[in-house]
Amino acid sequence: MTRDLIQGVFAPAFSSQPDTDSALLAVSGQEFALTTDSFVVQPLFFPGGDIGSLAVHGTVNDLAMAGAQPLALSAAFILEEGLALESVRRVAESMAAAARECGVRIVTGDTKVVERSRGDGLFITTTGIGQPLAPGRLEPARVCPGDAILLSGDIGRHGMAVMAAREGLEFESAIVSDSAPLHRQVLALIAAGVELHCMRDCTRGGLATALIEIAAAGKVDCEIEESAVRIRPDVRAACELLGFDPLYVANEGRFTLFVAGSDGERALSILQSFNPTAARIGRVTRSGAGRLAARGPLGALRILDLLPGEQLPRIC
Amino acid sequence: MTRDLIQGVFAPAFSSQPDTDSALLAVSGQEFALTTDSFVVQPLFFPGGDIGSLAVHGTVNDLAMAGAQPLALSAAFILEEGLALESVRRVAESMAAAARECGVRIVTGDTKVVERSRGDGLFITTTGIGQPLAPGRLEPARVCPGDAILLSGDIGRHGMAVMAAREGLEFESAIVSDSAPLHRQVLALIAAGVELHCMRDCTRGGLATALIEIAAAGKVDCEIEESAVRIRPDVRAACELLGFDPLYVANEGRFTLFVAGSDGERALSILQSFNPTAARIGRVTRSGAGRLAARGPLGALRILDLLPGEQLPRIC
Repeated sequence: MTRDLIQGVFAPAFSSQPDTDSALLAVSGQEFALTTDSFVVQPLFFPGGDIGSLAVHGTVNDLAMAGAQPLALSAAFILEEGLALESVRRVAESMAAAARECGVRIVTGDTKVVERSRGDGLFITTTGIGQPLAPGRLEPARVCPGDAILLSGDIGRHGMAVMAAREGLEFESAIVSDSAPLHRQVLALIAAGVELHCMRDCTRGGLATALIEIAAAGKVDCEIEESAVRIRPDVRAACELLGFDPLYVANEGRFTLFVAGSDGERALSILQSFNPTAARIGRVTRSGAGRLAARGPLGALRILDLLPGEQLPRIC
Repeated sequence: MTRDLIQGVFAPAFSSQPDTDSALLAVSGQEFALTTDSFVVQPLFFPGGDIGSLAVHGTVNDLAMAGAQPLALSAAFILEEGLALESVRRVAESMAAAARECGVRIVTGDTKVVERSRGDGLFITTTGIGQPLAPGRLEPARVCPGDAILLSGDIGRHGMAVMAAREGLEFESAIVSDSAPLHRQVLALIAAGVELHCMRDCTRGGLATALIEIAAAGKVDCEIEESAVRIRPDVRAACELLGFDPLYVANEGRFTLFVAGSDGERALSILQSFNPTAARIGRVTRSGAGRLAARGPLGALRILDLLPGEQLPRIC
């Protein structure tokens, strides 16, 4: 439904760039990146974060994916009457702490209150502004055969942490969201001169959706090794129990990146200096129809497609 | 409740500037303005506009009040399941038309869907970026004794139009919202070199609230002539019927401005070239405690205070 709305209703009406989460703009010759996201996650608090830290990380990461240094955020709150003031305070403090940790300021905001059952506790919309630092645009059109595909860490934790908190599930060990800012890794890659082609954070729809979208927009075929994708045993077990494919589970502190093949190992060592579970997971095999194939542990290839619906609604 | 939240919870947590709706920022020496607002108006469609055009005008006007030329907007949508696709399409087209008319682009967006009765049809959060053109900051601290207080047109229409649409009230003549962009007036004032000190759009809380907030923050006493404030007879009649004070009713296309007294007449003639109902309504009488006095038709002064609650919730 979201995809239809964006392609059928919003894209014709607006002049937004559909292939990226950030827009690049120029004011008096100075270029900057702009991105916005509404956060409607339920529950508001979950292991490893809350709607406030998530809103900061999500927007910082959208800027980072455009190769931009995050500078400032705005935050707009829609509160449902009856939400405990203590919850609002906890979220505000969590946002402030996350912003401090990211080195961005929350410079302006807005608050609206709606009646009971006309909202759902709290929605937050954050908009971020950043300064592009990557040489050249990072976009699917730059992806080409021979590119190395990397992943910044183990996957599936955010989605399963929220799911467990929402449904009151108890696993043997508590799964903690991976929600975290990604701009430091990105800025380190840029500073090292790694030839970045395209990056995407693996949020709604997970790693597989991010890769499929880039492959389709860049018109290339890609192949990944499933065994190279790190998934913690507790996350894998929870996914099996609930019938989720971890490749499609949302993350909020992981991204996949396409770099020139010759820069693959250098990029990997930079990523691993931030997170030892970062991995080189595949490559672009050829120009093509935008097909993503995953090689399983027994060597067989399976084709990964966009899922028809959201596995986990309201995960961010 | 909103005021308490902002002052007690959000202000301590964030580094936002509480006296203005826009923040001013610098990127590599280039200054720009950033502002955000969530729109939760009910009903979504009303005479003279809808939530989409309102979201564009509201954000454009917040930038204009900072003396900034609006450049680009982001738009984030939170849809409630069950909202007719046709309604979304109408709103999107209305937003696009409003943005075109304002000369701004909607460059990036986001869409989230929540379950039935977890939202209310549609919420829109717009964030705007603009280029400051006024020489010096426009803020309450610049307001001083002798300043002329002007108003860009007749008041009370937006609030009463939404109220009538919401409650299914029929007045003798349909009251149409004044929702409109204000940046052209502001840019004309700046281009003419009018010495602007502070401007505020008369949205939630209306003209009186805007003036009281500026007087309090600027530590000046102000006096306005009630008879100089233009109110259409149908709006005045509707307000009397429903027990509203039109000075406190929301507008979405009107602003009040404080200019150097010697520039009062020049500013007025510029405003009247856009709208013949613009008026010079009062003056800053002295440095003081931030008191706003209104002289009534019989010459008596009454002190205007902030209302304890919102006259009309969900008006924007």
